[in-house]
Amino acid sequence: MKLPKNFIIDVDGILNTGQFIYTKKGKFAKIFGPDDNDALKILSNYINIQFITSDRRGFAISKKRVFSDMKFKLKYVENKKRFIWIEKNFDLNKSIYMGDGIFDWILMKKIFFAISCSDSNLIVKKYSNYITKASAGNRAVSEACLFILKKFFVKKNIEKLIIDYLDKK
Amino acid sequence: MKLPKNFIIDVDGILNTGQFIYTKKGKFAKIFGPDDNDALKILSNYINIQFITSDRRGFAISKKRVFSDMKFKLKYVENKKRFIWIEKNFDLNKSIYMGDGIFDWILMKKIFFAISCSDSNLIVKKYSNYITKASAGNRAVSEACLFILKKFFVKKNIEKLIIDYLDKK
Amino acid sequence: MKLPKNFIIDVDGILNTGQFIYTKKGKFAKIFGPDDNDALKILSNYINIQFITSDRRGFAISKKRVFSDMKFKLKYVENKKRFIWIEKNFDLNKSIYMGDGIFDWILMKKIFFAISCSDSNLIVKKYSNYITKASAGNRAVSEACLFILKKFFVKKNIEKLIIDYLDKK
Amino acid sequence: MKLPKNFIIDVDGILNTGQFIYTKKGKFAKIFGPDDNDALKILSNYINIQFITSDRRGFAISKKRVFSDMKFKLKYVENKKRFIWIEKNFDLNKSIYMGDGIFDWILMKKIFFAISCSDSNLIVKKYSNYITKASAGNRAVSEACLFILKKFFVKKNIEKLIIDYLDKK
Repeated sequence: MKLPKNFIIDVDGILNTGQFIYTKKGKFAKIFGPDDNDALKILSNYINIQFITSDRRGFAISKKRVFSDMKFKLKYVENKKRFIWIEKNFDLNKSIYMGDGIFDWILMKKIFFAISCSDSNLIVKKYSNYITKASAGNRAVSEACLFILKKFFVKKNIEKLIIDYLDKK
Repeated sequence: MKLPKNFIIDVDGILNTGQFIYTKKGKFAKIFGPDDNDALKILSNYINIQFITSDRRGFAISKKRVFSDMKFKLKYVENKKRFIWIEKNFDLNKSIYMGDGIFDWILMKKIFFAISCSDSNLIVKKYSNYITKASAGNRAVSEACLFILKKFFVKKNIEKLIIDYLDKK
Repeated sequence: MKLPKNFIIDVDGILNTGQFIYTKKGKFAKIFGPDDNDALKILSNYINIQFITSDRRGFAISKKRVFSDMKFKLKYVENKKRFIWIEKNFDLNKSIYMGDGIFDWILMKKIFFAISCSDSNLIVKKYSNYITKASAGNRAVSEACLFILKKFFVKKNIEKLIIDYLDKK
Repeated sequence: MKLPKNFIIDVDGILNTGQFIYTKKGKFAKIFGPDDNDALKILSNYINIQFITSDRRGFAISKKRVFSDMKFKLKYVENKKRFIWIEKNFDLNKSIYMGDGIFDWILMKKIFFAISCSDSNLIVKKYSNYITKASAGNRAVSEACLFILKKFFVKKNIEKLIIDYLDKK
């Protein structure tokens, strides 16, 4: 089977709930959830992980979570240019994309494998190869990571893999 | 078919979850969601979009989100005068109204087309022509926008329309 | 039919979601919802409304919402003394109580009429005369108010009553 | 029947919703819920209660809630060392563990009795002896406490026990 090389993940509505906590000064906070960071750390031994966001006003929040705290790569690209940037920097035939939003299905039609969440946009879900049972910000990325491990990389038991990861850390 | 000219949208409980995050100093924040801004931008090529709110204490928060960041018109009108203000400024027979609250059904009985969300007030849902599957602050406005596009304006495929919008932007 | 004179309402887990947003400095915020204030204003023409809370650390937040902004009476009484305080200050046979918490069923066994929410404590729900379809902080109090109006006070149509309230305001 | 001596509880995703409210400065807040503190106080007359967390960046928030405000013991141990720390400090055969996360099932396989929540990680739920109907931060710990009381300690009616607790407090 063809093995994917990249896992490209949209931030808002995937790694967080997609909600913006707004004060009178603007975007104040986003809501991230459990397990996703741990599962990504395990998966990162098998595949290149890249986060992407089109949220300019909330970029500092996403950067703090994804880049500073979780230590993953994060790229800001406006929606219009997302497809072009990904096509230029990654082999679409060797990449998995996880997204939730109204424009994401355009990319999903071209990518090797597409994932969305139970609460993603309806059109996006239509073009997804796998839809997580979990909703965004509630272990959806964690579920996607274990799914990718099982489908593409790991012959041995997932539970054994998790124990090995803890032992090596 | 008669084409609507205006889409009048209540802010609290429609564009956000309707919840107020309260500190000891008062209303601190509201919770807005994904996709709604993008879908409204697409729809705004076809219909005049007007937001309305009766929340005086939280007005600065709503104004920051709707007017400063999303660049849509926002009017504060107290509940008692909402119907009168809308009747005076818009042709009810050419307007769509989307609302959630305990008084909104009064307007809905008179307006051309009424929309509410899956988690709106029960009386309001009774008087709605369309109820979104999504809950408020979780793509309900986005769903309403695509519904309006399909029902009134767009003969061609919605997906084609979204691609055209991205290409032109 | 016997008419109730008082509607005594617990704050946390009834008027808000029951959740505490905690920072490293302690209780920072609580999450209140739509419609409840409007429905209470309508009901207050028929019955005396009294809020009660046992949350000492979050009292300033509850006071800001209930007393300063909504203009209703709010009393702090610790859980242990809640029953005694209510018995001393109100005729139990003429009072409705709405509560959600692990101790509230003790009062509910003695009160004229007891209400809880769909997401209240299981024991409390067992002792409730009416359980709202809505969850706390998501129109549960509003639903309870309209229920009380219909059951005890209003022969005419509830919708007519809401219009009359708006006209008089 | 063998009586457990310790109830060891993970903080994030058990006592709170597992969600992190992030600002551009990092973890700002966590969301705790109703009833859990009261039920733990009742249960603490029967069993030693110990909280544990692997969240270093959010430790000050958890400490404020669990240790300063609720007055329970709280220990920071990184995920890798959680099992070893618990094994060293507690008799696994006399301990109940409540956890939600991707590594918690490893401990659950060895512990006397394991509990998770309705919204916990899927692998964790597989290894749980009891799964609460409630979700984390929405009375899950409270439900677990009453379950433990009934299963291991209390022959008399739980409702009688709650009244006794209030009377003695």
